[in-house]
Amino acid sequence: MSRFFSGKFDALKPYTPGEQPRDMRYVKLNTNESPFPPSQKAIEAAAREAERLQLYSDPTCAALTEKLAEVCGVGRDEVIFTNGSDELLYFAFLAYCDEARGAAFPNITYGFYPVYAQVTRVPYTEIPLRPDFTVNVEDYLGVGKTIFLANPNAPTGIALKPAEIARIAAANSDSVVVVDEAYVDFGAESCLPLVREYDNLLVAQTFSKSRSMAGARLGFGVGNSELIRDLNTLKYSTNPYNINRMTMAAGLGALSDEAYTRKNALTIRENRAFATAELEKRGFAVLPSLANFIFARHPAVGGEELYRKLKERGVLVRHFTKPEISEYNRITIGTREQMQVLLDKVDEILEEARR
Amino acid sequence: MSRFFSGKFDALKPYTPGEQPRDMRYVKLNTNESPFPPSQKAIEAAAREAERLQLYSDPTCAALTEKLAEVCGVGRDEVIFTNGSDELLYFAFLAYCDEARGAAFPNITYGFYPVYAQVTRVPYTEIPLRPDFTVNVEDYLGVGKTIFLANPNAPTGIALKPAEIARIAAANSDSVVVVDEAYVDFGAESCLPLVREYDNLLVAQTFSKSRSMAGARLGFGVGNSELIRDLNTLKYSTNPYNINRMTMAAGLGALSDEAYTRKNALTIRENRAFATAELEKRGFAVLPSLANFIFARHPAVGGEELYRKLKERGVLVRHFTKPEISEYNRITIGTREQMQVLLDKVDEILEEARR
Repeated sequence: MSRFFSGKFDALKPYTPGEQPRDMRYVKLNTNESPFPPSQKAIEAAAREAERLQLYSDPTCAALTEKLAEVCGVGRDEVIFTNGSDELLYFAFLAYCDEARGAAFPNITYGFYPVYAQVTRVPYTEIPLRPDFTVNVEDYLGVGKTIFLANPNAPTGIALKPAEIARIAAANSDSVVVVDEAYVDFGAESCLPLVREYDNLLVAQTFSKSRSMAGARLGFGVGNSELIRDLNTLKYSTNPYNINRMTMAAGLGALSDEAYTRKNALTIRENRAFATAELEKRGFAVLPSLANFIFARHPAVGGEELYRKLKERGVLVRHFTKPEISEYNRITIGTREQMQVLLDKVDEILEEARR
Repeated sequence: MSRFFSGKFDALKPYTPGEQPRDMRYVKLNTNESPFPPSQKAIEAAAREAERLQLYSDPTCAALTEKLAEVCGVGRDEVIFTNGSDELLYFAFLAYCDEARGAAFPNITYGFYPVYAQVTRVPYTEIPLRPDFTVNVEDYLGVGKTIFLANPNAPTGIALKPAEIARIAAANSDSVVVVDEAYVDFGAESCLPLVREYDNLLVAQTFSKSRSMAGARLGFGVGNSELIRDLNTLKYSTNPYNINRMTMAAGLGALSDEAYTRKNALTIRENRAFATAELEKRGFAVLPSLANFIFARHPAVGGEELYRKLKERGVLVRHFTKPEISEYNRITIGTREQMQVLLDKVDEILEEARR
């Protein structure tokens, strides 16, 4: 850091994105991207919009907001769009946490939460998952902090039911509960129907996964209109034109093609069932995932070793060094063909381990 | 605001973007957009990239960084890309200001600076311009604060010389001096050649104006590699994938077509000279602008009145209510045809005022 960097960030440790190596072509199962291209309607709309880039994008995202409100069955004033859901989460930490009101989230979850807490200088509590990696709802009742729950959780893939989130929201009526539903479209149930009932519930979603738009950067939040107003205050105080014209157009295109989104999500669920069953046949313990990834370990091959040996064989998965989960790898669910490559390489590695 | 919104933002007043009315088609001279489309190379590159949106964008912006470093004649580690230059300015307020080290900027400048100071909870000093709206360099020597200077300044269009900025940087060697060069390509001199000499100088630029990419959201900062490292720490702690794939591709396309950028900037300068001379003929006082806008007032028609009457006639300009400048309007330089429409409407309004 430079000698000018504010001392308030002395302890800040930035987030580490999944690796994007360029040394060779990998079967890329490490960043939970969709293996399918975006909807043709999204592609065409974005391409058309590229011709009008000289004009600022609409800071109110009016057309996109109207369409999403219709799709989600909420009001236009209950929606905000952000530059990926990461920006929404950042705004939520800024808006609803401070020195007096800290944050609480599981000890094993999206690795960005502690970074957001650090960069916004908010004290935070990491609540341990149960030994089976499930969230114990009891631990979240009346905690007096702003709660962040990825649901399904990452990197475990395990989801709570909306009724369980509702219980947490009801038991923390003076705090905001942020439900990060980045992976919700692959079999979990969304808490969107709860936002009218709980004025402290903010649901974050993204176009990155089920809508194949990770590279477009489009996330959104749904909640009580007063929460959305707070988040807009922050948006208009940091970056009012946070969504570019092409992404806005692509989003609108994707929302007009929900059948394609659903079809792809269904394929991912089928491939998840296939990969899970095949890995289990080979001795893996696989957590019960409702996301577009699985979290798995093998008794005979360590987590770091499997990650490394897969990478040597051209398959990238994500390994975390955190001790509680270092025996696991997070494997993105891709096409059936990609899953077969993974299994073939796993077979080679297990064969080698047996020798 | 909701009852959950942190009290730390009680005094926060968000930025107000220029209006984007939909009630009719305006000659839009209110948000300093380019009247020209982006380079065909930018359009084509962005459109191609729309087909690959399922993959995350490169958080390091490697290809774009390499190209820009080449164009600007700096090292790759002296560049950072942001979601518009607004994001860079926000990062700079976060990184280089705190309760102990406040910010200083002119009392009349980009209206976002006080908002950034408020949202990052930084004390700030507004240093008055001279009565002729020029920056008095003496006022900025040894101020002990992080200095933000738009150069050319907005909404005046008046620019300092790099030697004057160098004097400010030298006299504040313990503080960062941020030079916001959003409008530099229309005749002012850039401070880019100074960043090697002054480790406290950070230059912000954007693709929004001279490269016709306001709707793509692409800004960048150039400075000492340690400053860039600080800003990357904040980027990787808030939104690592801040630039989407299409914008990255469009930026690369634009940088491969600098002749087009230069040609358009030259046209804007010619149209600025034309519009300035014609307005002066009609009795306007026009500040000496080196930007893609002019700041003008007429002795017989008030600033708000002129804004309103132009809007009634289908021409949008930007009016600010701040008392020191409320007699003025900021008028974006568009095509020669747009300037002629402006002048025709001005003639109508002046004729009406004389009756």
